[in-house]
Amino acid sequence: MISVAEARNLLQQHIATTDTEEVSLYNALGHFAAEAIESPIDMPSFTQSAMDGYALRFEDYEKKIPLYNEGEIAAGTTLVSEVDAEHCIRIFTGGLVPPGVDTIVMQEQVEANEKHITITTDSLKQGANIRAKASQCKAGDVVLEKGGRLTPAACAMLAGLGIERIKVCKKPSIDIVVTGNELMRPPETLRDGKVYESNSFALKNLLKQMQLDDIRIKKAADLEQDIHQKIGDGLKAQVLLITGGISVGKYDLVKEALEKNGVQEIFHKLAQKPGKPLYFGKKGNTLVFGLPGNPGSVMSCFYLLVKKGLEQMMGSSASYNAEIKMPLANDFNKKAGKTTFLKGKFKNNKVEILDHQESYKLNGLAVADCFIEIPAESQILHEGTLVDVHLI
Amino acid sequence: MISVAEARNLLQQHIATTDTEEVSLYNALGHFAAEAIESPIDMPSFTQSAMDGYALRFEDYEKKIPLYNEGEIAAGTTLVSEVDAEHCIRIFTGGLVPPGVDTIVMQEQVEANEKHITITTDSLKQGANIRAKASQCKAGDVVLEKGGRLTPAACAMLAGLGIERIKVCKKPSIDIVVTGNELMRPPETLRDGKVYESNSFALKNLLKQMQLDDIRIKKAADLEQDIHQKIGDGLKAQVLLITGGISVGKYDLVKEALEKNGVQEIFHKLAQKPGKPLYFGKKGNTLVFGLPGNPGSVMSCFYLLVKKGLEQMMGSSASYNAEIKMPLANDFNKKAGKTTFLKGKFKNNKVEILDHQESYKLNGLAVADCFIEIPAESQILHEGTLVDVHLI
Repeated sequence: MISVAEARNLLQQHIATTDTEEVSLYNALGHFAAEAIESPIDMPSFTQSAMDGYALRFEDYEKKIPLYNEGEIAAGTTLVSEVDAEHCIRIFTGGLVPPGVDTIVMQEQVEANEKHITITTDSLKQGANIRAKASQCKAGDVVLEKGGRLTPAACAMLAGLGIERIKVCKKPSIDIVVTGNELMRPPETLRDGKVYESNSFALKNLLKQMQLDDIRIKKAADLEQDIHQKIGDGLKAQVLLITGGISVGKYDLVKEALEKNGVQEIFHKLAQKPGKPLYFGKKGNTLVFGLPGNPGSVMSCFYLLVKKGLEQMMGSSASYNAEIKMPLANDFNKKAGKTTFLKGKFKNNKVEILDHQESYKLNGLAVADCFIEIPAESQILHEGTLVDVHLI
Repeated sequence: MISVAEARNLLQQHIATTDTEEVSLYNALGHFAAEAIESPIDMPSFTQSAMDGYALRFEDYEKKIPLYNEGEIAAGTTLVSEVDAEHCIRIFTGGLVPPGVDTIVMQEQVEANEKHITITTDSLKQGANIRAKASQCKAGDVVLEKGGRLTPAACAMLAGLGIERIKVCKKPSIDIVVTGNELMRPPETLRDGKVYESNSFALKNLLKQMQLDDIRIKKAADLEQDIHQKIGDGLKAQVLLITGGISVGKYDLVKEALEKNGVQEIFHKLAQKPGKPLYFGKKGNTLVFGLPGNPGSVMSCFYLLVKKGLEQMMGSSASYNAEIKMPLANDFNKKAGKTTFLKGKFKNNKVEILDHQESYKLNGLAVADCFIEIPAESQILHEGTLVDVHLI
């Protein structure tokens, strides 16, 4: 049994990125930059107005005289001539600042008649409301690091620099094999000893949330041959996710089927709760995650390890560690030994440990905002203790 | 000019939900429950084991004698007969607990030979490792409130209760009209006074992140007729998002075109920074959001108001207010008067105000974790002040 930190290290060592391809920035969500991206242009690419107002020479403002209004420059105007001394010109947000002027006064701080403007503010500063050329970035500046996430904002930023296509690692194909003789499906009436299968619903939606949709779902009975064959099929995908059958029970046939199918075990069993039986292995470049059968454990393992593994496969440079720390809203005691992941909910400026932490229950998770990570060695935690928080 | 709080109230008053439909829980991500959902069954639906171990009578454990092992119950077994006194039976996680027994001992706390087990723990408690019938929920219990988000966990929870389809409000069709004479598109070389259009990239990806994909993008020049016609077309969708042309500049023709197209203004201009010119109106049930042209303002308005409006349209019961509070990592000063939204990044247990807050810059937003909401009346904030945080 290894620690959660060791598991994170092993995932980072063993997961290779997929092949690269070029995609449109309209379709880049869920991807990561496969190389550092440099701006092809200065941004702004010309000196522009930050306001709707009037462009003028600051020295004329200091004379406290009305300025003659030469006309106007709309956004998108590409050529403007020099503004004369004691003149000004109406300009709109984003408009090209003409030669001669150095300051823009907001339209709200001006009284204008047909020919002249009078400035009504005493606090105008030289250079006000002007966006200098290249003040956001220079041509050649790295604007997105290799491995950076293509968020909506990142896509828009790149598009604004004149980039429309970007090199990314391909999204993987994913097979899901759900195992267990106890699994039924509506409209069958549930018999004692049976449960309705829910893990395929969890995984399909978790993957869709990551913008992954090349997914096939298969169900296997707890029979050696059926599991062997479904796993063999599943290994044709780039990622194989299996639920159930990975504990040490007599009917936990998955591990043996993985071995017989030539999958190399990287780790099996983590000092964590829930999700202790988690298995990770590889066959060629196909990643295999053997998840427990309990729905709560499946989701916990997915959010805390599998998701970051898949993102790493797509080139993400993000850490496996928690994003933030927050103070606990309640006390919590546990035994030393296992890293414990608890469903948490934000409660004003603290994070509350939810009821229903048992791994077969999904009630808590359906309303959770995050997982709280309690280190293996911790035992007694008081309200207010800062804890690692994984957002979900 | 109205306050952000008033704008939130007006959105809540004026946004009606779309028609309902039934969808599979495999395709429910991005939706909200259109009605409260009651569990059709007890969960667990039978008394089940929480562990791989042995089921026994607690009174026999107290006798400190070896127990005769009757055999085993695999997960999925539907009928079991009563376990005799001084007997036990092997049982697996999720397995049906037979009549007679009341306690399960973990397999790790037992020495077993072919016929008998000896329990090695001194701390076994009556009822240990047993999940009582209906301990998660009873048939008829509300398991998801009306308006609750169909997260992956919620979908899995419902599937586990035997629900496979659910009533939701339909996802809206969305038209995007991007306006501005200054907008160019690669591979055109950027001329002075022009910028590459990026708002359509922002909005398309923001909507995809919400699992919305019925989207059309149109571009309009700053010409009355072009804007009038594109807006007229766009009003056939259930949501019309327009960028640019909504300030008070002479070339800001959008508002007039909306009026002429019969759109009723609900509000225009908010005491917020960025995004002051935000417009919201309706024609029939079509929602119209007029967003500023600055890319940073577009994203800020989207994340802080439009997104929650669209979610409300799909039946979400969530508040428009920030999810959490966190302490600031830096000092911040502003003038009183406008609610200010700042790009923030988590920094251990605090939230840092990022550089590059100007609304035309997307650098900051590309790496931001959240928006920090500073109330209109606030002026001087010190490091450590608790502030509202909107996660993105």
